[in-house]
This record gives sequence, structure tokens and C-alpha cells, in this order.
Amino acid sequence: MWLFGAHGGLATTLVVGTRAIARGLAEARGLATETAAAAGIPWQPLADIVFGGHDIRRGDYASSAAEIHARTGTLAPELVRKLRSDLTAASKNIALGVMPNAGPTITGLAGKQRPRAGTLRQQIAQVQRDIRAFARRHRLDRVVCVNLTSTEPPLKPHAAHRSLAAFERALDDNRQQLVRPSAIYAYAAATAGLPFVHFTPSNSALLPAIRQAFAASGTPWMGCDGKTGETLVKTALAPMFKIRDLRVLSWQGYNILGDRDGRVLADRDNKRAKVATKDGVLPSILGYPLHTHVGIDYVPSLHDLKTAWDFVHFEGFLGTKMSLQFTWQGCDAILAAPLVLDLVRFADLAKRRGEAGPMPHLACYFKQPFEVDEHDLHRQWLMLTAYLERVRGERAR
Amino acid sequence: MWLFGAHGGLATTLVVGTRAIARGLAEARGLATETAAAAGIPWQPLADIVFGGHDIRRGDYASSAAEIHARTGTLAPELVRKLRSDLTAASKNIALGVMPNAGPTITGLAGKQRPRAGTLRQQIAQVQRDIRAFARRHRLDRVVCVNLTSTEPPLKPHAAHRSLAAFERALDDNRQQLVRPSAIYAYAAATAGLPFVHFTPSNSALLPAIRQAFAASGTPWMGCDGKTGETLVKTALAPMFKIRDLRVLSWQGYNILGDRDGRVLADRDNKRAKVATKDGVLPSILGYPLHTHVGIDYVPSLHDLKTAWDFVHFEGFLGTKMSLQFTWQGCDAILAAPLVLDLVRFADLAKRRGEAGPMPHLACYFKQPFEVDEHDLHRQWLMLTAYLERVRGERAR
Amino acid sequence: MWLFGAHGGLATTLVVGTRAIARGLAEARGLATETAAAAGIPWQPLADIVFGGHDIRRGDYASSAAEIHARTGTLAPELVRKLRSDLTAASKNIALGVMPNAGPTITGLAGKQRPRAGTLRQQIAQVQRDIRAFARRHRLDRVVCVNLTSTEPPLKPHAAHRSLAAFERALDDNRQQLVRPSAIYAYAAATAGLPFVHFTPSNSALLPAIRQAFAASGTPWMGCDGKTGETLVKTALAPMFKIRDLRVLSWQGYNILGDRDGRVLADRDNKRAKVATKDGVLPSILGYPLHTHVGIDYVPSLHDLKTAWDFVHFEGFLGTKMSLQFTWQGCDAILAAPLVLDLVRFADLAKRRGEAGPMPHLACYFKQPFEVDEHDLHRQWLMLTAYLERVRGERAR
Amino acid sequence: MWLFGAHGGLATTLVVGTRAIARGLAEARGLATETAAAAGIPWQPLADIVFGGHDIRRGDYASSAAEIHARTGTLAPELVRKLRSDLTAASKNIALGVMPNAGPTITGLAGKQRPRAGTLRQQIAQVQRDIRAFARRHRLDRVVCVNLTSTEPPLKPHAAHRSLAAFERALDDNRQQLVRPSAIYAYAAATAGLPFVHFTPSNSALLPAIRQAFAASGTPWMGCDGKTGETLVKTALAPMFKIRDLRVLSWQGYNILGDRDGRVLADRDNKRAKVATKDGVLPSILGYPLHTHVGIDYVPSLHDLKTAWDFVHFEGFLGTKMSLQFTWQGCDAILAAPLVLDLVRFADLAKRRGEAGPMPHLACYFKQPFEVDEHDLHRQWLMLTAYLERVRGERAR
Repeated sequence: MWLFGAHGGLATTLVVGTRAIARGLAEARGLATETAAAAGIPWQPLADIVFGGHDIRRGDYASSAAEIHARTGTLAPELVRKLRSDLTAASKNIALGVMPNAGPTITGLAGKQRPRAGTLRQQIAQVQRDIRAFARRHRLDRVVCVNLTSTEPPLKPHAAHRSLAAFERALDDNRQQLVRPSAIYAYAAATAGLPFVHFTPSNSALLPAIRQAFAASGTPWMGCDGKTGETLVKTALAPMFKIRDLRVLSWQGYNILGDRDGRVLADRDNKRAKVATKDGVLPSILGYPLHTHVGIDYVPSLHDLKTAWDFVHFEGFLGTKMSLQFTWQGCDAILAAPLVLDLVRFADLAKRRGEAGPMPHLACYFKQPFEVDEHDLHRQWLMLTAYLERVRGERAR
Repeated sequence: MWLFGAHGGLATTLVVGTRAIARGLAEARGLATETAAAAGIPWQPLADIVFGGHDIRRGDYASSAAEIHARTGTLAPELVRKLRSDLTAASKNIALGVMPNAGPTITGLAGKQRPRAGTLRQQIAQVQRDIRAFARRHRLDRVVCVNLTSTEPPLKPHAAHRSLAAFERALDDNRQQLVRPSAIYAYAAATAGLPFVHFTPSNSALLPAIRQAFAASGTPWMGCDGKTGETLVKTALAPMFKIRDLRVLSWQGYNILGDRDGRVLADRDNKRAKVATKDGVLPSILGYPLHTHVGIDYVPSLHDLKTAWDFVHFEGFLGTKMSLQFTWQGCDAILAAPLVLDLVRFADLAKRRGEAGPMPHLACYFKQPFEVDEHDLHRQWLMLTAYLERVRGERAR
Repeated sequence: MWLFGAHGGLATTLVVGTRAIARGLAEARGLATETAAAAGIPWQPLADIVFGGHDIRRGDYASSAAEIHARTGTLAPELVRKLRSDLTAASKNIALGVMPNAGPTITGLAGKQRPRAGTLRQQIAQVQRDIRAFARRHRLDRVVCVNLTSTEPPLKPHAAHRSLAAFERALDDNRQQLVRPSAIYAYAAATAGLPFVHFTPSNSALLPAIRQAFAASGTPWMGCDGKTGETLVKTALAPMFKIRDLRVLSWQGYNILGDRDGRVLADRDNKRAKVATKDGVLPSILGYPLHTHVGIDYVPSLHDLKTAWDFVHFEGFLGTKMSLQFTWQGCDAILAAPLVLDLVRFADLAKRRGEAGPMPHLACYFKQPFEVDEHDLHRQWLMLTAYLERVRGERAR
Repeated sequence: MWLFGAHGGLATTLVVGTRAIARGLAEARGLATETAAAAGIPWQPLADIVFGGHDIRRGDYASSAAEIHARTGTLAPELVRKLRSDLTAASKNIALGVMPNAGPTITGLAGKQRPRAGTLRQQIAQVQRDIRAFARRHRLDRVVCVNLTSTEPPLKPHAAHRSLAAFERALDDNRQQLVRPSAIYAYAAATAGLPFVHFTPSNSALLPAIRQAFAASGTPWMGCDGKTGETLVKTALAPMFKIRDLRVLSWQGYNILGDRDGRVLADRDNKRAKVATKDGVLPSILGYPLHTHVGIDYVPSLHDLKTAWDFVHFEGFLGTKMSLQFTWQGCDAILAAPLVLDLVRFADLAKRRGEAGPMPHLACYFKQPFEVDEHDLHRQWLMLTAYLERVRGERAR
């Protein structure tokens, strides 16, 4: 598994957790691929996954885990101590990332550590060299890429994004303003034929041009923005209002979070991307326009313990107004890590089965599933189980 | 439509609301049978429904509506004024009900007004005579019965409940301790061949013996306990935890409500029935035992504005504990009335189609759907839409 | 009582409510001046209060009350019907207001109805003429003014605001950009010697220059921004954290509301004023800087049923983090109206007692009490009761 | 400091926390006696406090701390490791407690470990011998006792509780049914002249007879039931409704908690004591009777992370109903430990100052302050600060 954004809290939680499961120190909780629903499929064993990745900051997993523990209480020191050698090994697989046109907030995170420079073409080549070296070093048969980088400011649409040919010309001309880091990573994966999971809302990764690149190399991909918390609850609950014909007048959401994620989203530009992927789901499920808004604010003391309050105002029989409110208190990295493991296993399975392009059966994992027009969690889950049924059926033949 | 419990808040809301819709004074909000999902089915027109029923208290709809408005703000006086003649007409169709072995709390509600006495067989005959007279008076082709009486203390299981023959002997012997009012009403419907919807949790209505009576007369029935509020949310949300393999450690629910309903449930015996139908749904959806409890307390000032707080404690990746809490603030009669209309239409459709026995496709309407082992709201909804598809298919042929 | 903003929801609720109490149709609930704590003071009888005012929109109280009822359920039609002649009489006392430099959102509210124009001096003279005519017409001994106009965009500080002389020159020169409507109203009250209660957050009313004008005419005044909902709870709760030495890390507030108020606050400029008066209270009570933020969003379906969610993250013994969250669901006009009645009675009492300038004993009524450095609700209340004690003491002598 | 209930979670947190502060490993957060409000008083230095106590279970602080960390995340292993020798020393000071007539739930906690038996008089003598031995061993000048034992089932009132003479006869006659463990501990402290803080709701500790014993020996005491969480918030908030004359219609509280505390309270008898001390505060603050109820349920997965949901239904101007709800999520031992430290310091100060009997200035620490008729947290705090002012004044003279 190759992680873009390899030193973030999610990546650290993912590496620590996977190794803890591999060594029998933790249960494989939170993975659909480990439940009865996904039985009978030749999933990549968790214990055999090797981690590598790119990041714009230097770091190592043991100290990153200690920092996370101090902030959120997860990743217990006792556990991390037992995984020390695994974490040291994984830390050695992290190469310095790229940062073309990342915006001031993300650039600020890099600190004094300047990331790899060079032309866009040089950056892409370097990214691919790093992955190839990693695969060679660990004698890996397959590599799956996951994008976990910080949310970027939305990239303004441009003609060069619309076709692979135009995009490649822009790369040749080193037009840095037309890309962001996620675009470089996604393009590098696409042209190297590596399955790609886009777990963040950044719109630069799955530009039409880059999707064409994936198609050209026959490579599966999916995105975007992992559905971990408030939006997960929203897409589980909204169908209830539809089933009961209770008309939702307003659905107001308010998210507070700290940590690097919160800091990046405190930047109005970066926040825009996030709010966009969160705002569309309700009209799609309910079938009518409604007043809906998702506020996000930075509350440093919460660190990764994201808290969301949603207020749903709805109208029933005889126009009577009623309400439902919920408060979700979840640790984002803990919620996301098993989803990433699931997604990587699904992407790997698709690659082995010769499937290319978007993986619509993975819609339930994303706030904004690409090329799928279904946000209802329960219908998305039916798509997933139908896919698994199909795979099992084909294997049985 | 024949209502057992015809003077309660739900029945009043139902009558006012249906007539308001019939006269174009309100939208038909909250009815699945009025949505696109249920199009193409020859539903009984709402405007043609005539209301009658039994109750142990005397009353009339206009003053009952005024009382409800004063308490909960629903059933606006302006609206009720426009329906005055409709309400007067409906009020004339209410006969005095029966009350064998109802328990002290319900008996107390009747006040000085003593309900019809006589042997059980006499009471049953009287109930059926009342319904027949109503049908004749209004020249009705069909009558559907709905049980909306107050929650009774659970009836202790007895051998006489297990077979129709034994039960009929108990009726012949006038063994009042073996029945409660709901048993009499349900049996009367069954033997008269009238479709029966059991909307409350009382366990005396759908005893095995009575189900045999419905089978014998080829009559459709369904129950029990309308899924209007907290349990509705619960069965919409719980599947999310299953899909994400987030292990629910505890799901604690706390309901507060006032009004006659709350007063009846403040009686420990009557509450037992309610808690029982609410407690079973989670293990069924999640597939494992868990700590779960539903508290109910009487808060007079809330009247029918039921408020429920649920706290869900769950465990994710690496054993991390997180939580979700929600507060539901709904008006129970407003939520229930359109469900009753839907159910009556479905029961009427089933009768016309010659379907007898339980109607499992109506599971989504009940906290404890009889002879159905599915509590997941979304799967229940698929059962309903599949049934509608089948009906449409048969009609097309 | 003279109301600036006489056709708003608060003013309407105030007029309806006061007349309902006067006629014995409602209890005097929510007024401190009607409780045991304020006994023995010669308060102005509520029944003798005559209402007049300015507004930029035309209207009448009966239809305004009907509109409010349709939106929030308050001001029952049955009640309003009984007050019809009182409301008609009050409606006749409303004159057209002024609107110099009010900002586009407020100007938009006026609709086609253009408010009085003319130079600033002409506008001031007109305002005073309207009040004098009202007093003469109703043979009033005393008039107290209250500012209930919509929240204005903050007025940029200017040298002309700092001294009465400079401000009067600006008025003479008709420099409209240096004022807003509240400045005109407050100045008119000050120079006419009329006690003035500033119930909104607009910063133009109590400019230093205008406070000098009140001092010059020996007139009592107080402000600003009525403490009705979320901030009330905040200033009642925050002292608890101080008493227990529980360190507040973050106090995040999120308000949602509809109606004219919400629409005006949806304008970023107008919102700035509101957030400013809400943000300062916590550091003052707790005694240290902390992360605190008050978000406000416009949710039309709520109308005046303001809902606020506050999340308090705090640290106790051994650095353990804990949390408190609350949801406040209040009807703003209903909460504010009795405060206005209290304040007017206090201002009237002060005038009669010959007190001039700010009234610090009224701090508990305001989000931002002028010339008082105390936000703790309980200490503010002690200030009020001490004042009442003093008044009673002086009367006894 | 002598702890009755020395192996509970609160006692363990207290010992670990005090030693952590003593060694400079933690801040003294949560103690009023460490804030500016309490400056200038010769408090017992925290670092010089020596811990001893009685418990019915054997144990040691290091393993008890490890168990607490596993359950609630507090008492970090890194910290506990640094205090190992301190904890071992404290563990040696714990003697086996007494258990006359403790009720089945508490008796069950003792496990196979049978507590000291003998007559009541022998048990009392043994308790006093243990404390004297501890004081001698550590050359202590003074000992203050704190009752932290599990909540007992209420002791039925009896004539023998009303006078010291009658109570002593009952002890002489070894009438075990007239006492419970807390009575024995409190009587032992009283007759030994040791200041006594009753931190739990058990009604057997401060029986009138025992209060007479404290008076006879000139010893200060105070109780009962530490005000740590939901009741703390309640007594901070309720005055706000009084100040604003918002009439509280219902105040419904619902507490969920796990751990030994929750298990003991799951026993209906033990719960009765708790609910009683929680239920009285509101009518006292508000000045009128109201519908109020405090529910408590056992939710094992929460351990000591007590969660409380309160719903306040209130009525304002024109009879409009509104609501406030809050959710408190606190760790009970963490909230209580600094209160115990404060109380012990105050009791010690009182003893040194020659004050005997109840300490009403400590009312703010208790759910049910003895011989004080004030529940408003803010007024209670004024009592405390007035006392401190007096002490400072006397010292200055």
C-alpha cells in the first residue's frame, strides 16, 4: 500500500492498526471485508501488506503515534511499543513528496522541509521512481495507491483538465497553476497502472483528464472523500424521512474539529472543497431541494475527536413541524483507517479481476462517489453486496 | 374505518386530518400511499372513508380537537371550525366500548361512564352489531378495523390462548381473566371477516387463537405497535453500525411524554408491554446481544410532544470507544395518523385481493412486526416496494 | 413607551402581551418587576402604558400578530381577536421612521415604502415632533424610548463620534455616512430628555458623543443587546466552571434562526455586530483567554424559534478533558418582550428618581452592558437586587 | 487523610492525583483552595498529606490505577509508573473495613474477603485503633476522615438514631440492624474527635445521634454527597430561570454510568438514597413545586464516564413553552477528587480554628448540604468566599 500523505494522523493510525491486527494485538474491527458479508473472497491478507508513501513532512511512525496518543488517547503507548520494529521499518519507506501549487496553508505545514522541486514532469517521474523502488525493495507483486493528503483549495476548472492530451501538454509546459499535489499523485498512479483510491475531497485528483489516463492504462480507481462521520449518519438517516414522507425543511450541520485537518479547513479556501462534497447528498436522497448547510469550525482542543451537531427540522401530517438533532463524537482517523483497508483490498481485487475505471460498488465509502448517483447508505450497501455476490458467483463457476 | 379507541388523541387527529385532506384544507403529507412509490395502485380514496368506532369514554371530535390544540398546538381551531359538520357526523358513529379485565389504570380512564357489561359472548356480539349497524347506516361496501386503545398490562400466557377451540371454550365459559379489551375487539373482527390493524403493543389482540380465527375467516391482519418515533430512528440508524462494523456496546434510550399515553405508561404494568416491543429490535438488526434499555417516564407538561434521547456507545478500530446521541422531538399522534391511513388502505387492498393472514410487507410500520424477522427499516421498505411491484405487475397482466 | 422598530416581531409581541396582561387575559410571566424580588417599588402599572413608535415599514399589529402566529405558533388568534381594538389604537401611533445610511439589507426591508428623507437635522426634528405629538395626544406625563430596530452593520469609528460638539457639527453638515438610524433615534431621545433603552447590538446608538448628550440633558440610558437566549445560559453556566476551577478549553456556540432577524444577520456585515457583543463575555467571567466562537446561520423554517447548540470542552483534575453541551430552543420575541417591559419600568423609575446616565444595575439584561465590567449573571443579579434594596431604603426614610 | 472506602476509583484517583501534584507531575487543577479566591489561608500543603484508610476489599493502588486506566483512559500508565513507590507506601496503610448490615449488593463486592466481624463496639474500637496506629506510624499531628464508601440502602429511621444516649445503648446491645458501615465509621470519627467529611449519600453517617457525638467532642463535620456533575450543572442553571421568571414546568434528568458505582446504584434500594439527595434541589432554588425526576441507569461500557441528559421544559411570556436540554459527559472520580482535597483542607482548617459541628460554608460542595437551606451554587459560593474573607480578616488582626 502506497500512501500519499504518509505522515498524517490517518496514515499513522492505519499503519499502527494494521500491524497490530497482523500481530494479533487487536481485532480487525471496522472492516467490512472482515465480516460475514464479505466471506468467500480472496482478500489480500492484512498481515502481508507493506506500507510506503510520500509526505511533505519528515517524520517517523513511532513519534507520530506518541503525538496522536497525547492528543486523542488512541494508539496506546503499550501497543506502539510492541510494534516498534514494524514502525521503524515502515518509516524507512516514506519518501519526500511534491507540492506544486498547494496553497499557503498546506505549504506552511511542510515547514522548513522543502519538498522535491523540479518541473512537473520531473516530479511525476520521481514519484513513480519512488514507488517502483519500494516495490522492488520489498519484492511486491502489486501496489495500490491511496490519497490521504490534506484537503487542497479547489482547483479552478480549466480546459486543460478536460482531455488527457490537453493535460499532458500542460504538464509538458510545466504549468504549475493548473495542478495541485493530488493531481500529480493521481496522474503518476494512472500512468503507472496502479489502482488509486482518492480518500480526500480535493478536486484536482480525479480530473476528467486523469480519469482518461486511468482508462488508458486499464486501472481501477474510486473516490472521493471518505464517508466517516456526520455524512455517514446523514445518509443513513435521510432515507427514513423519505420512507415516512416527512418533509425535511432544513438540515443544518455543524462540525468542529482540531488537529492538522481542522487547521487546514480553517482556511476558507480549503474548506470550500469539503463543504461542497458534504452539501449535495440530501437533495439527492430526498428528491427535492431543501435548506441545508454544513458549517465547519476549527476547535484546537478537540484534536481528531471530531464532534458534529445536526439539526433536522421537518414537517409531517397537517403541516406540523418537528425536529431531530444528533451529536456525533467520533475519532476521525479511527473511523477512516478501516475504510482505507477495505478500499485498498477492493481496489486490489478489481485489479486482479481485470476491472478498470471507477468502482461504483464502493459508493458507500465516499461522501461524493464518482460516477454514481446514489447517496442512500443502505442502497449503496446493496450495490456492494450485489458486487460481492457476483464475484463469489464467478469464482464458483 | 372502524376505530377501537375512537376518542383518543390519535383517533381525533386521524379523523380531523383525513377530513381536512378530503376537503382540500391540508396536504396528504406523511402517507407512503400518496407518494410516487405507491403510484398505480387502486387505493381507497381518502375522501370516501367514513369513520366509526368504539370507546370507553364518551366524547365528540370537536371538543377533543380543541383540547388537543390547547395541549400540543396541533389541530388549529381555524381548521377544526371548517370541519365542524364532518366532526359532528363522525362523533355520532362512536359506540360505547367494552372493558373486560382492562386493569385499574385503563378502567380509571373510563370515569363514571361504565362500559358495556354482559358476558364475553354478549360483548363480542354487541361489538359486531355496532359495526354492522354502522356499515348499513352508511351503505359501506367494506369495513377495516384498527386497534388504537390504550396499552394494556400484558396478558399472562395461558393454554386457552394457544388454539381457537380452547379460546372459544374460554369465551363460552365467560373467563374474563383470560382476555382483555383488545382480545375481544380482535376476535370480533376476525370472526366477522373484517381486516384488522393492531397499532398498539397490547399482547392480547393477536393471540395464536385469534390468528387462527383470522385464518379461518380468510381475513388479513397485521401488527403490532406503530413505529412512529424513537424506534423508527433506531431501526434507520442501527444498520449503519452493522454496515461499518462499528460494535455497539450500549444503546440506551429514554422517552418522556405526557398525555393519556404517558399516564397509562406510568403504570408499571402497562409500561412492561411497551418496553418489550421496543427492546428487541437492536439485537435482531445488529446480530449480537448488547446492553440496551428503553426507559419511559411521564412528563405531563409535554402532552403528546414525545421527546426521546438515545445514547449509542460504540467501539471501532483498535477498540476505540465513540458515541452518537440523538434527541427526537415529535408529536406522536401526528406521526401515527398517516401510518394508520396507509395501513388501512393496505389492509383494504389485501382484502380485495383475497389475501388472508399476516401482511409481512407492512413490517416497516411496526415496532414488532408479526411473523416477520426483519427490523431494519430499509430492508422492510424493500419488502413493501417489492409487494407494490408485484401488485402492479398482476394488475398489468 | 416609544418603540424604534415598532413593527418588528418583538414590538408586536410586546404590545399584544402587555395588553393581554392589562386585560387579565395572560399572566405577567417573565418580568422581574412583577416578582417578589421587586416588591415595594412604585412601578409604572402595565395597564397604563401607551404604545407608539417609528418604523420604516407600514403595518398594523393585528396582521403582524397573525403573521407571527402562522410562523411560530405564539400570539394565539383567540387572544388577538379579544385585543383587536387595543391593537388598532396602538397601530395608529406608529409614524414612519428614518433610514440614513442603514446598509442594503435593512434598506431592502423597507420595500417600496421610502422612509422620511431630509437632512439629518430635519430627520431628528421630525422624530422628536412625532414623539411630542404622541405624548400630547395621549396626555402622557412621561415617555420612555426603546430601540428595537434591526441590527445595523457596525459604524466605523470616527473622530466625530468622540465628542458631542464634533458630532453636532457632523449633523449640521448632514454627513450621513457618520450615522445610522439608531444614532438618529438615540440622539433625538437624548436631546429631548427621554430615557433610552438600547436593546439591539447596533454600535451607532450609544456613541460617546451621544452619551454626552444624555449626560447634558440629565437622562438615564442603558444598553446594549438584550440577553435573551444562548448568552443568558452562557453567563449563568460559565461561573460554575470558574467556581470548580474546571479550565474551559473551548466554548463553541452555534445559533440558527429564521425570520427578519435571521435574514438581517445572514448579511455578513450586520452579523459582525452581533457576534462582537456575544464573544466577549466568557474571558471576562473566566478570567483567562480561551478559544471561543459564536456562529450564526439563517434557517428560514425556524422563524423566531431560535435554536442554539453550545459545546463546552473543559479540563479537570490530572488534565482530564470532559464536555458539556446544551441545546436551547427559545422563542426570541417571547423571551425579549418581558425584558423590555422591565427595562422601561426601570428607566422610568430612574428618571423619576432623578438618576442620569448609564444604569449599571441593569447589567443582567444585556449581552454587552455599558460601563459595567461584570458578565456573570448571578453577580449582575446581585447588583440589581442591591439597587432595589437601596430604592426601598430611600423610600422608607 | 483517612479514607473510608480506600480502594474505590475515587480514592485511587485521589491518591494518584495528590502524589502527582506533590511531585510536580500534574497541575493542581480543580481545587478551589489553589485558586486566587482562597489565597492567604494557611492550607495544609498537598505534598505533606499522608493517605490511609479502610476498605472491605483488598487491593493496591498501582493495580487499581491500571484497572481504572483500562476502563476510562485516566491515570496514564506513564504517570503511575513514576509514582510506584508512593502508591506502594499508601497501599500499606489500608486496613480491612467493617460491614455490618451493608445490604446484599455491597456485601457482594467484598467477595471472599470477609471483613472484620465482632460486636459493633468491637468494630468501632478496631476502626479507631487502625487510625491511631496510622497516625503514630507516620507521626501525624492531625487526621481528617472522609467517607467514600459505596452508596448504602437507606437506613430506616428509628428512635435509637435520635439521641446519642439511645444510639449508644443500641451499640452496647449490638443491634446491627440499626446501623450500616457509614454509621460505624462516622461514630468512630466523632468519638475520636476526627473531622469528618461525608462525601456519599448514605443516610446512616450523619444521624442526629452521631451529630450529637461530633458536638460532644467539638469536632467539625460536613456532608452529604459530593456535587460533581449533573446536580452541579442543575444548581448553576436553575437560578437563571428564577432570575428571568421563566417558570420551569418539568426538569427531567437521566443519568447513565457504569463501574462499581453504577452497579451499586442498579440495586433499587441503593439507588433510592441517591435519587433522594438529587431530587430536592430544584424546588428549593425555584421556590415552587415542579415536576422533576432523576433517573439513573447502569450502562457498563461507560465505566466512570458518567453521562447525564437533562431536559428542562419551561414557560415564558404569554404562556409560551420552550426548552433547554444539556448533556454532561464527565469522569466522576476526576471531578470528585479535587473536591475531596478541598473539603479535607477546609475541615482541617476548621479543626485548627476550633470550629465544631457542621460547616455550612461548604454547602457548594454537596448535593444535600446539612443544616443549610441553600442550593443555588452561586449563593453557596458567596457563603464560601465570605467565610474565607472572615478567616483572612481574623488572621490579619
